[in-house]
Amino acid sequence: MLNLKESHKCFKGKQEVYSHESYSNKCTMQFALYTPDESKDAEVLFFLSGITCSEQNFIQKSGYQKFASDHKIAIVVPDTSPRGEDIPNSDDFKLGMGAGFYLNAISDPWSKNYNMYDYICIELPNIINENFNFNKTKIGIFGHSMGGGGAIQCALKNKNLFKSISAFSPICSLEKSEFAKEARDKYLSNKIEQVRLYDPIYLMQNSETLKSIKIDVGIDDEFLDDLYINDFKKICSQRNQELIINKHTGYDHGYYFIQSFIEDHIVYHKEMLE
Amino acid sequence: MLNLKESHKCFKGKQEVYSHESYSNKCTMQFALYTPDESKDAEVLFFLSGITCSEQNFIQKSGYQKFASDHKIAIVVPDTSPRGEDIPNSDDFKLGMGAGFYLNAISDPWSKNYNMYDYICIELPNIINENFNFNKTKIGIFGHSMGGGGAIQCALKNKNLFKSISAFSPICSLEKSEFAKEARDKYLSNKIEQVRLYDPIYLMQNSETLKSIKIDVGIDDEFLDDLYINDFKKICSQRNQELIINKHTGYDHGYYFIQSFIEDHIVYHKEMLE
Repeated sequence: MLNLKESHKCFKGKQEVYSHESYSNKCTMQFALYTPDESKDAEVLFFLSGITCSEQNFIQKSGYQKFASDHKIAIVVPDTSPRGEDIPNSDDFKLGMGAGFYLNAISDPWSKNYNMYDYICIELPNIINENFNFNKTKIGIFGHSMGGGGAIQCALKNKNLFKSISAFSPICSLEKSEFAKEARDKYLSNKIEQVRLYDPIYLMQNSETLKSIKIDVGIDDEFLDDLYINDFKKICSQRNQELIINKHTGYDHGYYFIQSFIEDHIVYHKEMLE
Repeated sequence: MLNLKESHKCFKGKQEVYSHESYSNKCTMQFALYTPDESKDAEVLFFLSGITCSEQNFIQKSGYQKFASDHKIAIVVPDTSPRGEDIPNSDDFKLGMGAGFYLNAISDPWSKNYNMYDYICIELPNIINENFNFNKTKIGIFGHSMGGGGAIQCALKNKNLFKSISAFSPICSLEKSEFAKEARDKYLSNKIEQVRLYDPIYLMQNSETLKSIKIDVGIDDEFLDDLYINDFKKICSQRNQELIINKHTGYDHGYYFIQSFIEDHIVYHKEMLE
């Protein structure tokens, strides 16, 4: 059952936030949803946010609603982790609440609740299909940073679910990124075969290719070296994976960068899902 | 002297935040500035935010940068009050930090620092003129809620400074609005002649008219009755003041509403300043 927590008219549609009990994460989860006024059979995009974010950051800061409204696309923005008083957490912002890394944890105390991979790839798509009248097959996924990597790894393993894929400044190597060290060590006990289950570069090397992948990144991104985008590009090239990478001079890692190119991403997904 | 606190490339321009010592408010103030890449002789708009806001809310949530970039307009976003450890404050969010009401306080302990009227109408425009290469005369002002009323009262008293004026959901009656009760009582000792100095309705009745005023407001604005927009409209009509009011069904008082109509306002100012 969905509980409506917020509803605001925004452009020609509404920005809402829902909560629900999650069987994957065994806690109450929130997600945001933009519904264009004419929503029947609308394409659906899932946006996966970066570390420290909840469902609120993207909906408040990216300015995406104008383009979701113009192109009549529904956009689902999940939280980035389970949350609540009983949920394990850490003092490190790269582990625990706000940093679920879109994987299923295998180690205590994380494994009970930190199952964001199942949440994003099974539970939440089913909730959207069951509760709204959007198109059931024209579904895409995109994300930023931790969520950009999350979008790529989810898409590579769920070709029949996610038909279009793009990312802003994605963390392309779960295996190497310093940002993901705590996630590897604590969620996955640093087991390489587990890490590879969620590693965009490894999966790109070992999965069927996708129709196309679009990546935008700022040249002045303060975390550029930790994203391993060039390594990802090399593997895409080896695999003949169509990859559109735009590197933008002067832009950094934050929402002012996302905002500047959000229209391009929404138009890209619209075209890929046609 | 200006200190650069933040700088982010955003669309074809940059979103920056500066701090400086303010002689009006006798404290360090911050303001945000969007500078389009081709900024020489650019029109300048001042945006005055609502209660509880700093310079950050509008720049993070309104999505204005795309349109400032497209139309090559510089936009200055001041904080809404003095701030700092030594600055008087209150537990009521409608008084003290975040709620300067764009007036000069006359009562202790507020009068030393709460001089936002002088800051907005004298100090900050001079700082912008002295430090940047924008147009020195094509300057407009707009704002939201407390800042919408602030923009109107500042414009009515400074026709030679602010050449274009618009507002989202403005508080039009400083004299009657419940939101402004604490400001009247504490900043201005509830002296009616002082209150009227900053009251859009009183000033509309008693000042020279302006070229045009544009107001947008949501019909589902939770504070609609406290804004006194219909009273303001009546006085504008009596004075033959050109007034464009758009009332939008379904929209509320927040940034999702502002975001939906921000392009219209920027285009309006661009045209009025031509």
